Amino acid sequence: MSSIPQTMRAAYLPGDGTVELRTVPVPEPGHGEVLLRMKASAICGSDMKFIYRRKSHPFDLGPDFKGYEDVVCGHEPCGVIAKCGPGLRRFKEGDRALVYHISGCGVCGDCRRGYMICCLSKWRRAYGWQRDGGMAEYLLAEEKDLIPLPEPLSYVDGAQTACGFGTVYEGLSKVAVSGDDAVLVVGLGPVGMAACMLAKAMGAEKVIGVDISPERLALVREKGLADEALVSDDSVLGNIRRLTGGKGCEKTVDCSGSKPGRLLAIQAARTWGKSVMIGEDGEAAFRPSADFMHEHKTLYGSWVTSTWRMEELVERMVRWGIHPDALITTRLPLEKAAEGFALMDGGTCGKVAICFDEELK
Amino acid sequence: MSSIPQTMRAAYLPGDGTVELRTVPVPEPGHGEVLLRMKASAICGSDMKFIYRRKSHPFDLGPDFKGYEDVVCGHEPCGVIAKCGPGLRRFKEGDRALVYHISGCGVCGDCRRGYMICCLSKWRRAYGWQRDGGMAEYLLAEEKDLIPLPEPLSYVDGAQTACGFGTVYEGLSKVAVSGDDAVLVVGLGPVGMAACMLAKAMGAEKVIGVDISPERLALVREKGLADEALVSDDSVLGNIRRLTGGKGCEKTVDCSGSKPGRLLAIQAARTWGKSVMIGEDGEAAFRPSADFMHEHKTLYGSWVTSTWRMEELVERMVRWGIHPDALITTRLPLEKAAEGFALMDGGTCGKVAICFDEELK
Amino acid sequence: MSSIPQTMRAAYLPGDGTVELRTVPVPEPGHGEVLLRMKASAICGSDMKFIYRRKSHPFDLGPDFKGYEDVVCGHEPCGVIAKCGPGLRRFKEGDRALVYHISGCGVCGDCRRGYMICCLSKWRRAYGWQRDGGMAEYLLAEEKDLIPLPEPLSYVDGAQTACGFGTVYEGLSKVAVSGDDAVLVVGLGPVGMAACMLAKAMGAEKVIGVDISPERLALVREKGLADEALVSDDSVLGNIRRLTGGKGCEKTVDCSGSKPGRLLAIQAARTWGKSVMIGEDGEAAFRPSADFMHEHKTLYGSWVTSTWRMEELVERMVRWGIHPDALITTRLPLEKAAEGFALMDGGTCGKVAICFDEELK
Amino acid sequence: MSSIPQTMRAAYLPGDGTVELRTVPVPEPGHGEVLLRMKASAICGSDMKFIYRRKSHPFDLGPDFKGYEDVVCGHEPCGVIAKCGPGLRRFKEGDRALVYHISGCGVCGDCRRGYMICCLSKWRRAYGWQRDGGMAEYLLAEEKDLIPLPEPLSYVDGAQTACGFGTVYEGLSKVAVSGDDAVLVVGLGPVGMAACMLAKAMGAEKVIGVDISPERLALVREKGLADEALVSDDSVLGNIRRLTGGKGCEKTVDCSGSKPGRLLAIQAARTWGKSVMIGEDGEAAFRPSADFMHEHKTLYGSWVTSTWRMEELVERMVRWGIHPDALITTRLPLEKAAEGFALMDGGTCGKVAICFDEELK
Repeated sequence: MSSIPQTMRAAYLPGDGTVELRTVPVPEPGHGEVLLRMKASAICGSDMKFIYRRKSHPFDLGPDFKGYEDVVCGHEPCGVIAKCGPGLRRFKEGDRALVYHISGCGVCGDCRRGYMICCLSKWRRAYGWQRDGGMAEYLLAEEKDLIPLPEPLSYVDGAQTACGFGTVYEGLSKVAVSGDDAVLVVGLGPVGMAACMLAKAMGAEKVIGVDISPERLALVREKGLADEALVSDDSVLGNIRRLTGGKGCEKTVDCSGSKPGRLLAIQAARTWGKSVMIGEDGEAAFRPSADFMHEHKTLYGSWVTSTWRMEELVERMVRWGIHPDALITTRLPLEKAAEGFALMDGGTCGKVAICFDEELK
Repeated sequence: MSSIPQTMRAAYLPGDGTVELRTVPVPEPGHGEVLLRMKASAICGSDMKFIYRRKSHPFDLGPDFKGYEDVVCGHEPCGVIAKCGPGLRRFKEGDRALVYHISGCGVCGDCRRGYMICCLSKWRRAYGWQRDGGMAEYLLAEEKDLIPLPEPLSYVDGAQTACGFGTVYEGLSKVAVSGDDAVLVVGLGPVGMAACMLAKAMGAEKVIGVDISPERLALVREKGLADEALVSDDSVLGNIRRLTGGKGCEKTVDCSGSKPGRLLAIQAARTWGKSVMIGEDGEAAFRPSADFMHEHKTLYGSWVTSTWRMEELVERMVRWGIHPDALITTRLPLEKAAEGFALMDGGTCGKVAICFDEELK
Repeated sequence: MSSIPQTMRAAYLPGDGTVELRTVPVPEPGHGEVLLRMKASAICGSDMKFIYRRKSHPFDLGPDFKGYEDVVCGHEPCGVIAKCGPGLRRFKEGDRALVYHISGCGVCGDCRRGYMICCLSKWRRAYGWQRDGGMAEYLLAEEKDLIPLPEPLSYVDGAQTACGFGTVYEGLSKVAVSGDDAVLVVGLGPVGMAACMLAKAMGAEKVIGVDISPERLALVREKGLADEALVSDDSVLGNIRRLTGGKGCEKTVDCSGSKPGRLLAIQAARTWGKSVMIGEDGEAAFRPSADFMHEHKTLYGSWVTSTWRMEELVERMVRWGIHPDALITTRLPLEKAAEGFALMDGGTCGKVAICFDEELK
Repeated sequence: MSSIPQTMRAAYLPGDGTVELRTVPVPEPGHGEVLLRMKASAICGSDMKFIYRRKSHPFDLGPDFKGYEDVVCGHEPCGVIAKCGPGLRRFKEGDRALVYHISGCGVCGDCRRGYMICCLSKWRRAYGWQRDGGMAEYLLAEEKDLIPLPEPLSYVDGAQTACGFGTVYEGLSKVAVSGDDAVLVVGLGPVGMAACMLAKAMGAEKVIGVDISPERLALVREKGLADEALVSDDSVLGNIRRLTGGKGCEKTVDCSGSKPGRLLAIQAARTWGKSVMIGEDGEAAFRPSADFMHEHKTLYGSWVTSTWRMEELVERMVRWGIHPDALITTRLPLEKAAEGFALMDGGTCGKVAICFDEELK
């Protein structure tokens, strides 16, 4: 491990579509903490929506929503442990690790389940939101937030898993995707593409993707992520039924976060089918008797995942031979972070990762 | 068993708030069929909404909805077998029985699961909707639709079970109510009152009922059906949380079929809580992130029940010592059916049952 | 449909390793019944064990076990409907169908769930055990026992499904096999081979087969049914753990029915793993603390399946492009039934089917 | 809080039925640790079996079993926080708390699920086994192992929950006890009595207890813990069926850890019933076809519980108004620990707790 400098470069998102690079001190790991040498830090859709495009300070995202607090951005971080604080029990210098991106108190009922995302204590701080995140040369993380990254996976694989793939796997696990299922994925952005990839790995007999964007549909077809990629027009529900023997899909997944997308996911589920909501924000509306109740459907709400399921996902991706980095279309160095955010803002690329060292190929 | 007459009196619902009594032939049971001497036939909310109040022929209730077809009305029938056709395997003359109120084909995938309610074949005909129902002195039923009524239960208990209590038990079973749960019941009409009663029997630690009607709340309090009976005003969500340590209910049940009622049921569920929709018709709308996903909730759609679960319910009601007839506020003879429907239409009574013989006390 | 003769040839199993062919009348379908022109009828391991090898009349298989009653043998029947009795609701002449091999009363709680196998009434009669089975030119069956056989599947596929594959699918469904799982199958006879095939179709990431017989292991390897085929020696548990990162399998299936096989299936399950027993007879023994409880394992008992799940399996096999007939090693005409049973008795072949017409290729 | 002394009295179990009281230094809490002023510490059956009665050093309990390491004994501790180390996030001086009795590493997959009992790391040390336990005036504990004890519960309630009641609740949760269930509890020692109490709270319609000991049966009857208390003789299975309409119990729980007790629990489960093993050690044996598979039963292995479920149990006991201390028959001061262990060894008492201060009433 090369020697650790005193200062480092780090990216901040002051809002209004700007990225600011600052030189800041490299932090020192305390009890139960590690210093990660960053290797990859991917940009998430929520970075764009809730932080990058934000118009001005102070923001108002509702009473319960903890917004961005002028910290180093980036909540999909992955790297290698450069230095350890005292009191570590599992990880050591040189270990490769991704970071479960919400650091909870660790000792409430939610954290004890591994769902630190649900922690309601004052200690809950998401990386890249309320505590420094991954868009810097080094990251201070708590050992309890680390997930080991085994060799077959790249750091970019790990970064993708820290938020997007983990969130998708939680949702697919809630509806228990298997080879018994035709799976509908509504919304084919990075999260939807991850859903296609993981549904297939979990055994889905058929994956049907739906989006309104021809570019996204083309990308999904090109990458072979879905068995069918359908444009979301007036006939899409009929088309899904036609592809499933008139019955609809055993499992459906909304990654669109849109009102019509959610309705489609509910309607396209087969009798006794299960549907899960992964896409955030906005509203949902449906007719209970006709769309839902009379076919004994179940609808699951899902949010991020637990630390232990993220660890299971990492184990399984190795077993499946899956590489989330296949969804990354652009890799950029930290100094070009502004370019990366602008690219994502354009909406015509896939997913962008800020990379370091060997991952910057 | 007294001798069976040639003709009988039977009630029909031509719409516009009228009830017609006709003298019709007593039917003859064919293969696999029985003739039931009716003892009790309760009026259901859907009789009122979709049949009695219907304005004119022909009705238009959407392409999928099979409406009332000028048959003997009444889909909550219970009686004693007066005569058996050939080919019976379980039931015999003199057996007491309630009727699962949807006669499916019996041989499709849905019927084979016991969920004849979901049968899509041309053979599917609901009693009191598309085939003669219980508001007559005799009823022709298929053996496969019969549920045995054990002695500790009255015929009115059985009639209540054939639709309302069966439907409620299915919903409560889907969310698996137990002593671990505070249970919220939204909407305290006959179905909601059944939900309170069964939730308690299934072990609910606390039952909280909500309605907009002071009369219904008073009735629920008077009958001791809920631990708390709350009026549905602006502070009701806060009140429910206050009664549950700030956390909400483990299980919530919508029996209102109303948009605000459904929203309340979703919002009042605790983190990891389960909510079930039993009330029919109309719309549902909520904010997925804030109301549902971030607390990992699950929403179940439910419709009627299966034959085998109805039979389980009957077994359990005997074990619990529960009597659904406690919710009946008025018993009338068949000749006063018009009076019964008018009473239900007024909305100030509880539930009305048309009764015969010993049940007409 | 060619004209139906007055008499037909039919096979009986008087015991002591003999097969008797008799000429008997072709039956006439009554209410709710069909006459099937037989196309395929496979020999099951239980035919061998409990009927063919049986030493003498009367047999004694315990108070609860309903033995063979000198009927036409064969409980894995598949054919085409040659004639219909009155009262049919779904099937018609010319329909291809397999027969769920236990005809229950149809109206008890178990039958209403679709699990006619559990029917306790006097009406319960298994085809080929207490009522005439499939080893004849024609078979009288009840419509409620028929499962439709879609075109992509052959009659031999259907025959295999009627008992073996249906039973396996029930077990694998109970433990919910998916792509998350390494699946261990203990015992690689016809049932174990079906388990390997279906586990893979359900998405299993890895299928590990274990048997004591080198011939069976060779057959499994040759047919590519398992990712690993291990001999059951002292090191087999260690070998399984080595193949699964030291952890054991998420799901394990015993098809051996043997005491050591069952113990292996329990021990080889991973922490939180699920194990299912499909193989019949004999005993099971294990050390609860060390083998089972301390790793929070669950053990499922399974028996045959339901009519509706068998129908789902047929639907899925079409979607998967799976053909159970791939496990048949010998097809023989009815006149050579004795040869077929003798072959199975030798234990060196795979599975034998008695075939008719176009299936006798 | 009174000032903390330099030394304290503490009990050790050198084996051969002896208890040793020593004067040792009061420990100092480090990072993430607290010093608990002990209030109650109950004696568990495993203390007796594996530690107190142990014949000599070194013991041999198998390669995987971590035995007692000459630490302060007692793994059911409950007290009040007297002093806090740095880095605490939830608890503070003066808080009442029980101790989840296995301190895992906190950062492996098992610990992240809350099941520190399953931790395989070198950091895993059970209180009273490999690190100092509750039979002393003070106890050093990690914050992550603490469960808050709300006011309505006594310290003895909390001590009982730390091992016994928590373990029982886990098992009953696995089989999902509710008002739908008749519940059989086999073995009516302290664990079995806790099972009766919690099954009732979870809503069990009927609780049937079985034991071989007339004293225990008498105690259960006297305390009103079960609806039926049956002696375990040759007719017990028949008696259980008779009490359940001939069907057996929906849920059965083995707390006996004995071979016949386990067999009874499996056999007495109803078709589709669920059975859970809580009692430790020894063997289990049954006939899969006759006892288990043909009735589609499921058997769960269970071990201790998770931190979060223990916390849920504490919440629910308050809601239920349940007090585990009702099962304590003897309270003794620490100086009389030897007397307490001797009493438990006699086997004629219920459960003994070493108490301090206000709990020593």
